[in-house]
Parts: sequence; C-alpha cells; structure tokens
Amino acid sequence: MTKKQAPPQATIRRLSVYLRYLSGLENDGAKVISSQDLAGYLALNPAQVRKDLAYFGEFGKRGVGYSVKKLRDHIIKILGLQQVRKVAIIGAGGRLGRALALYTGFEKRNFKVSALFDNDPRVIGTVLSADAGEICPIENLPRIVKDRNIEILILTVPAQAIKEIYDLIMLSGVQAVLNFAPFKLISNENVVVNNVDLTTELESLSYHLRLKEAGEPLPTTDSTEEE
Amino acid sequence: MTKKQAPPQATIRRLSVYLRYLSGLENDGAKVISSQDLAGYLALNPAQVRKDLAYFGEFGKRGVGYSVKKLRDHIIKILGLQQVRKVAIIGAGGRLGRALALYTGFEKRNFKVSALFDNDPRVIGTVLSADAGEICPIENLPRIVKDRNIEILILTVPAQAIKEIYDLIMLSGVQAVLNFAPFKLISNENVVVNNVDLTTELESLSYHLRLKEAGEPLPTTDSTEEE
Repeated sequence: MTKKQAPPQATIRRLSVYLRYLSGLENDGAKVISSQDLAGYLALNPAQVRKDLAYFGEFGKRGVGYSVKKLRDHIIKILGLQQVRKVAIIGAGGRLGRALALYTGFEKRNFKVSALFDNDPRVIGTVLSADAGEICPIENLPRIVKDRNIEILILTVPAQAIKEIYDLIMLSGVQAVLNFAPFKLISNENVVVNNVDLTTELESLSYHLRLKEAGEPLPTTDSTEEE
Repeated sequence: MTKKQAPPQATIRRLSVYLRYLSGLENDGAKVISSQDLAGYLALNPAQVRKDLAYFGEFGKRGVGYSVKKLRDHIIKILGLQQVRKVAIIGAGGRLGRALALYTGFEKRNFKVSALFDNDPRVIGTVLSADAGEICPIENLPRIVKDRNIEILILTVPAQAIKEIYDLIMLSGVQAVLNFAPFKLISNENVVVNNVDLTTELESLSYHLRLKEAGEPLPTTDSTEEE
C-alpha cells in the first residue's frame, strides 16, 4: 500500500460519498463498518474501498473493519473539512446562481456562501441572504475575496462571460473554482477547477439511450468508478 | 484500434466537449482541425483525443486532421443527439428544479424539458414554461412518462425524498436519470444514472486547498481526464 502515490480524482470523490454515509451511520449510533458494507451501499467492489482508503494510510483492521468515528474524522481531515471554507458565487443574479446562493446543504458540510457577484446593474445591491450580503459588482471580486477570505468561487455565468471574468478570477487570489458555465476551464498551478457541465451530463445519458436503441450492450461502470 | 471495446465514461464526456468546440468551429467556417488543436484547446494530450475518437472507428487522416463537419456529425450520431430527447424534472417546485426548468441551454442541444413534477400541493398546477406545462403530482409520473415519451428524468429533490420516489421512477419506464440529490443512485440494467453531487464537487476542491495548505504537490489531472 503506497501512501505516497497521489490518489485519483475518483478516489477523492468517493471519499466524499463515504463521508456522507459514515455521518449517517454515526448518527444512527453505529460503531464499526466493514469494507464490504461500505462497498455494498455504493455498489462498489470492497477491494476498491480498501484501495481508496489505503492511499491515506492504514486504518482498518482485517476481519474487524473500520471504526466509524475514526474513519469519518480521518476523511474530514483528508478533505480539509475541519474548517469552514468560504465560497462566493459569480452570476448570483441568474436562476442557477440564486438557487445555489440559497441552498442550505452547503453550510451543513462546512461551506459558507460569503459573497455574491453579478455584472447586471438590475441585480447588484440585492440581498439574497444575510450571510452572503448584497450582490456586488464583479469588478470588486479581487478586493472582496481578500477581505472575506474567500477560497472557492462558483461560476454560474453564460459561456461567453467566462472570457470577460477570467482575468479577474486569476487576479483574485482564489485557489479553487467550481465552474457550471458550458465552457471548460483548465486548472493551472494556482487555481484548481472542477467543471460541471449539465449538457455533458445529459449527452452522456443520451449516449446510453442510443446504445439501448441500437441493442448494444451497456457499459457497467458509472462515472464515479475507476476507468 | 479496437472498435468493439467499450469506451470509458470519460471518453463519452469528452465527446460532448469536443462536440461543443466543433460546433463553434463550424459556425466560424473552419473546415479541418488537427488532433493537436482539438487537444490544445482542452489541455489534453493529442494521443488522448485520437484514442477517444478511435473507439468509434477511423475518421481522421494522419497529417491532415479531421473534417470539422464530418467529425461533428459523427459525434452527434454516437451520442444519439440527432433526435430530440424529452426530459422531465422532479422537484420542479424547488429552486434548483425551477432554475433547470427555465434553463434555455438544454433546448439548444436537443433536450426538451417536457414535464415537471413535485409533491408539494402549493406548487402543483403552477406553469413554469409553455412547453413543460404545469407542475404535476409525482404520482402521475408513470402515466405522463408514457404519454409524453419522456426518456430522461432530472432529480432535484432532497436526499430523503429519493426513497419515496425510487419505486415510481423504476416503474415509470424511464431509462436515464440525472440525479442532483445528495444520495448516490446506482445504475441498473434498466436505468442508467449520472449523479451530480454539488457537495462532493466542493469537497474535492477542499481537498486541493488542504494539499496546498500542507505544501503537498497537487495532482495534475482533472476530473475529465483518464484515471
């Protein structure tokens, strides 16, 4: 088990899913879980679960399983979730931006929407939530990122707006971006980007529909498994 | 180049991204593109692009490149996008469901939101858009899926609601689900599921922030690359 090898993105994503399940188990009072049970819940191979966790050291006992609390605490540390991570939304005047600004699920997981931005004068100044304050002009991004210690930007802007705000984002000193714009942003050494493209999700489903229509066998893996 | 080997999910997702870029190129009047240029735009390895496309047969000429129009048409066929795919949204009364119901980007890519569902009596009967009609009670899902030939469901419901609607979804005869609920749904032989978990996206970004804080080297791959 090589502790030093960098885990793949799919492993990191599964850690997040394990964490949610472990939190539920802990609430239910469970003390110990086997890799079989953890795997069964997620339709994964138990060997996959053990491999995922082995990237970060040894913490299960063969034949005994994992301590729910210890494993949960460990994953929280691995994912850097002991501390609140402050998030800003760019495009907060749009429907998706607004929906995310008001989504209460982030705060339960220690992400706090702490600033909102838009370029539309009609929405600038609007207050969507007390914590995030009013929607600010996008020009103020670098200053507000520094003032409020924003670490993550969520982009919910049209594709063509990305080019206009790209330099501002890079200047802002923010280190992580979750991009919903249908324009793939590339990670660089300063900023890591996760792209979520809703059309790509639908198109990959369409591919499966087409395979079925053609009577071709469906692949059995899903997007969170190793490829 | 084995045409019969099943392409990984990451390849299918990249086809969607290639398609968007090729559509832009075609609008700009470009006739030919090399795998280098296609790769450069997406920060991929040209060999990766060639490998992705080779799963579906040979259509580039070494030293000449790909015909933009032919490659675009071919990817449209691979992804089953020649025809309109009808989509329904469950949880259309919520903020995210509403945002997706009113998103105009899907229709540009041949996905048509054609039905809306919720379980909240206060929103049932509300008309969000002319095409999708009024928000229907979730109990009507199987009938409406059949009547309107719905092929894809988008779920924007709370995690605990998934259990209540799971049987209805499986009964409905729908073959593809895009799930935004923070509860991982597993694909089965009848229904293929893509899970998009917003918290998992933020948590994987938090992992990268934690690596930076610890001064550890960052992985260079991103989520759309092979793992």
